[in-house]
Amino acid sequence: MTYPITPLFLLMNETNLLMNEFMEVSVLLFEEFETLDVFGPVEIFGRLQEQYKVKFYSLSGARISNSHGVSQDTLPLDSLNNRVDIFLIPGGYGTRKEVDNEELIKEIKTIAEKSQFVLTVCTGTSLLARTGLLDQKLATSNKRAFDWVITMGPQVNWQRKARWTVDGKFYTSSGVSAGMDMTLGFISDRHGYEFARNVANEVEYNWTEDKEEDPFYKLYEN
Amino acid sequence: MTYPITPLFLLMNETNLLMNEFMEVSVLLFEEFETLDVFGPVEIFGRLQEQYKVKFYSLSGARISNSHGVSQDTLPLDSLNNRVDIFLIPGGYGTRKEVDNEELIKEIKTIAEKSQFVLTVCTGTSLLARTGLLDQKLATSNKRAFDWVITMGPQVNWQRKARWTVDGKFYTSSGVSAGMDMTLGFISDRHGYEFARNVANEVEYNWTEDKEEDPFYKLYEN
Repeated sequence: MTYPITPLFLLMNETNLLMNEFMEVSVLLFEEFETLDVFGPVEIFGRLQEQYKVKFYSLSGARISNSHGVSQDTLPLDSLNNRVDIFLIPGGYGTRKEVDNEELIKEIKTIAEKSQFVLTVCTGTSLLARTGLLDQKLATSNKRAFDWVITMGPQVNWQRKARWTVDGKFYTSSGVSAGMDMTLGFISDRHGYEFARNVANEVEYNWTEDKEEDPFYKLYEN
Repeated sequence: MTYPITPLFLLMNETNLLMNEFMEVSVLLFEEFETLDVFGPVEIFGRLQEQYKVKFYSLSGARISNSHGVSQDTLPLDSLNNRVDIFLIPGGYGTRKEVDNEELIKEIKTIAEKSQFVLTVCTGTSLLARTGLLDQKLATSNKRAFDWVITMGPQVNWQRKARWTVDGKFYTSSGVSAGMDMTLGFISDRHGYEFARNVANEVEYNWTEDKEEDPFYKLYEN
């Protein structure tokens, strides 16, 4: 009897799946986060309860709200001491203030460095860009805010036309709804296309499957 | 000098706009609501702060959560004593229990009767169907759960193939993401297509503009 040999790097990538453990999706919140940047990806990760568990974090660990009337309990970021599986950074008007919050940017850098994956949605990319960790890496962001976001990371390899980008462990998406397309793309990369397609069908989402298909970049071109 | 004569019914429909007042979007929550059913429409209404104000309600008025890790503060439903502008009813696994919650169904009926508009998302249609208010009216729901939902309202004019339906003041949508298409359709009906198209562009959402275009119904056909 023979056994197929599985390369070690494949085993390491799939450790959580093989051990039948979920990965934690650690979602960063701050005042005036964008509602759908958060709850689009949370809908997708949240329903995959055998694979993922969503938790919300903020600098203070307090309840965080936005002007859409949304409020959410959070844990303090500094309780993320050990392994960080997936770090999700949303955008929103709050980023305009938080890019200058040195304590938060420092925490984001520390957590992103030890995260297995870092996903940013919309103007959330500006916060990650401020850490310097995206320098020389592919990234995109909200199309309306693009010219502002790129000033937060002059060394980033910005892709104006992209629904989302992947560069190593960093996934970045275009504006608001694109966070769902990116999350489904992430699910596809980890669990295969058919698995992701099934999730999209379950939530009846018109998934833009091709990360280079970006119907919105032209609207806000200079 | 002459003044154009505006028919009274137009003035009444547009009273809130003319008075430069926002309409309240009263969102019903219950344990195990579906995340995106709620926060997709809330993203759209929430960003239109000159026109709409989102508030969350539940039978108990407590903080309501679901298994995606989401929690949201609510006001008690019985505090909705006066005018109700827009009543939004989401779906989710919680509906399987709540269709038998007589107190909740009675409250939903009372509020829906006095609401200017009632919008249901996904299996949220089952809760409204249970009140009898949808009898003989067009309605749709989540495609996977359709055969269960229709048992909650045998006299409803169910449309299996529909992204969303409109029948008088009642808007009902297909599953999860379709709540965003319906909300943009509602915005289009009230403020015009260009206004709604602009909102879709802002959130970079691939809006299914035609309510009869439903790519998902075939997947779960009997």
